[in-house]
Amino acid sequence: MTAGLFDLPELRAREDTGLPERLARSLAETTAGWQLSTAQVGDWLAERALANRFLVERIPFDRLDQWAFVEDGARLAHRSGKFFTVEGLRVTVDQGPVLNWDQPIIKQPEVGILGLLLKEFDGVPHLLMQAKMEPGNPNLLQLSPTVQATRSNYTKVHRGSAVRYLEYFVDPTRGRVLADVLQSEQGSWFHQKINRNMIVEVDEDVPAGDDFRWLTLGQIGELLRRDNVVNMDARTVLACAPIGSDEVDALHSDTELLSWFTAERARREMRVELMPLTEVNGWRRGPWSIDHEAGRYFSVVAVSVAAGNREVTRWTQPLLEPHGLAVTAFLARRIGGVPHVLVHAKAEAGLRDTIELAPTVQYTPENYAHLTGADRPPYLDLVLAAGPESVRYEAVHSEEGGRFLNAEGRYLVVDVNEADVPLDPPPGFRWVTPGQLRFLARHPHYVNVQARTLLACLNTGAVGW
Amino acid sequence: MTAGLFDLPELRAREDTGLPERLARSLAETTAGWQLSTAQVGDWLAERALANRFLVERIPFDRLDQWAFVEDGARLAHRSGKFFTVEGLRVTVDQGPVLNWDQPIIKQPEVGILGLLLKEFDGVPHLLMQAKMEPGNPNLLQLSPTVQATRSNYTKVHRGSAVRYLEYFVDPTRGRVLADVLQSEQGSWFHQKINRNMIVEVDEDVPAGDDFRWLTLGQIGELLRRDNVVNMDARTVLACAPIGSDEVDALHSDTELLSWFTAERARREMRVELMPLTEVNGWRRGPWSIDHEAGRYFSVVAVSVAAGNREVTRWTQPLLEPHGLAVTAFLARRIGGVPHVLVHAKAEAGLRDTIELAPTVQYTPENYAHLTGADRPPYLDLVLAAGPESVRYEAVHSEEGGRFLNAEGRYLVVDVNEADVPLDPPPGFRWVTPGQLRFLARHPHYVNVQARTLLACLNTGAVGW
Repeated sequence: MTAGLFDLPELRAREDTGLPERLARSLAETTAGWQLSTAQVGDWLAERALANRFLVERIPFDRLDQWAFVEDGARLAHRSGKFFTVEGLRVTVDQGPVLNWDQPIIKQPEVGILGLLLKEFDGVPHLLMQAKMEPGNPNLLQLSPTVQATRSNYTKVHRGSAVRYLEYFVDPTRGRVLADVLQSEQGSWFHQKINRNMIVEVDEDVPAGDDFRWLTLGQIGELLRRDNVVNMDARTVLACAPIGSDEVDALHSDTELLSWFTAERARREMRVELMPLTEVNGWRRGPWSIDHEAGRYFSVVAVSVAAGNREVTRWTQPLLEPHGLAVTAFLARRIGGVPHVLVHAKAEAGLRDTIELAPTVQYTPENYAHLTGADRPPYLDLVLAAGPESVRYEAVHSEEGGRFLNAEGRYLVVDVNEADVPLDPPPGFRWVTPGQLRFLARHPHYVNVQARTLLACLNTGAVGW
Repeated sequence: MTAGLFDLPELRAREDTGLPERLARSLAETTAGWQLSTAQVGDWLAERALANRFLVERIPFDRLDQWAFVEDGARLAHRSGKFFTVEGLRVTVDQGPVLNWDQPIIKQPEVGILGLLLKEFDGVPHLLMQAKMEPGNPNLLQLSPTVQATRSNYTKVHRGSAVRYLEYFVDPTRGRVLADVLQSEQGSWFHQKINRNMIVEVDEDVPAGDDFRWLTLGQIGELLRRDNVVNMDARTVLACAPIGSDEVDALHSDTELLSWFTAERARREMRVELMPLTEVNGWRRGPWSIDHEAGRYFSVVAVSVAAGNREVTRWTQPLLEPHGLAVTAFLARRIGGVPHVLVHAKAEAGLRDTIELAPTVQYTPENYAHLTGADRPPYLDLVLAAGPESVRYEAVHSEEGGRFLNAEGRYLVVDVNEADVPLDPPPGFRWVTPGQLRFLARHPHYVNVQARTLLACLNTGAVGW
């Protein structure tokens, strides 16, 4: 933007007040679609799976190529020094049934880009979704954002082909940025990882490649009701969509909500220290995996991958394989007629700011099977016992298939009443509206990645209300 | 908040739309005041200085009480393990004239409270300011917020008397929270320090103690035009005041601004590692101080303090003593009739998120005297050469006197035009409105403490426009 000496520079409205209405049109448009009906997506994904050979095989660590345990086994690292490492972490917290522990963790300091391209067809905004293979997905191929690129990806560390459509996100002045925010990922598995979540609108003609299709928000909502169709990277970007918020009133004002979050953040103390893998207590490294001595939590394993449509056609890499199916749920109530969900200010060792807002329940039941009474995770048993009449939403989704192997979870929204959870819930919990979650998701370090999956379901209408 | 089975729960407006107008009344009220006129503040401060004996004396490290170099000199620490430590930091960055360095740094992981109490008198909101002694202030006594408490303070680590008015901030349901946000402090001197910045409004009667006076925003604005009257802790809280923003339009939309910030954050790489003080290259520890070998930046020193109105009456402590007067300035322009200031996305080693928005210029000229040409800090020479006709604001303020000794800086707002700085400034710089800074200062990790001092001057009318 430039201005000559005699031009009055053009100012912009600080907020694009027309945008929520346009996105509402995309949300209302279900079923048919412009390029592909929702019913056809399954067939199209199956066709793309056939078109792209893709074989994933477990291998022992000593068959990893370019990856090795370095510095006397302190870290599992790529020869280039890029991508990520697996290291040890020592954690000390000030509350909870377990006050300190060691664990392996994935350290990925680079900031990648998760980008969705948006374009209007016949006046309705559509998003360019990719059929993308990821070695850790249980069904290998799912819908990803237009672009899913680590910094190593797009600076060509592995000398593969260029990432398609990346130019719109590296230089967003080619279009209009609708959302652009750094968001954390799994705080139990990643050390301080953040990715850039972007939505960029374009007017120019953008041909959809063979592995890409334009879908509406409403269609994506329909697909989010199915198991393992929309991948984690797509879900986290959809959570940041500026769809506008319709509630003017809420149980707590936004300032009260921010104040409660600040107090939760201030009262929690957590000490976190990276350390050599060899010094991690309670975990054992074998030829095929690193495992917890009681078999809990997760293992670190290695896979060999062969694919046709990836930037390189063959590689090996470590993956983190969780044990058991996670259960991730928002408890939900109408309060004064306005939908609210119960957030949990949850401390996770890998988060930069100690706590973020998580769903009410975010646990893998197997890991807590040995705990009883007050040590049981709050509300987990309520969710496990929920009957179909109170389950407003349920689907199985998997976490980032580029780092995690078969990391599946049941995502739910479960209706409760005052007897289950009062308006004034226990410390660490708070009733918030979906609009308040969107207000917070515009900024980093507030809404964790599991809550963002459920927020994506709210934003796309997958959860009806 | 509770609701019986048959009550309709009371919802609240997410935003208190009446608040900006009330604060505008406080801003408009200058000079006279309800309890003390602005002209009387100087006499009152002088009287409080007489009433509270206060003696600060430089001492060698070996005369520190309760403080010592521990672990073979690795850290300078308090015997309790609380308050703060002085440790070493190794920094590697990817751009700039200096790509890596070591330095001592203050590590203070506890989150403290900086709290301002607000109450209406005759319909005008007033803030309860404290006349507070701090050993590092050049004039010892300045106006602080109502409460200024480290966690060690209010959990009574030093077994002093209770912090007055603290109860309103520890339990903010005694009043109404108007602002509550975690903010960083000096990223060159602190490792990841954050404090809670709070404004709490009360209706009940709150007697002002001898060292406390109720002042309006407008009066504080008048005082911010004087040197060394309003301390850093008061300035950072005032920056977070929800005074509302009057600009609907700006050069860039809020989303464009957030996107630019995200891109700046993503493109910068900085590696930061705490290390023992004994391994810090380029610095030397003597009996009285730790100094840089070229005499630049700062020294770590020790003082002995005796005071009458502090929580304890006698103590010793380390302080960080910067060398030279800092120059901190916003360049400013009207764009399309709307005031804008030029922010700098500045990387600082101690920040949790690598960069925050800093003033255009934030340098101590002496530290850069050896640099020439392109290595000179951008716009520093423009600010140093600014004539009185273009200086919209200038005052000397000091940084936190509880950690820093005589840390003074000239704070300026300097008018420029298109020939000085175009609408499309160099990478790392952006024109933003004061309202956009306020929008960001509602959340952590966006606006650094130096920019918040200048934002406080904008919020209180100290900078006219």
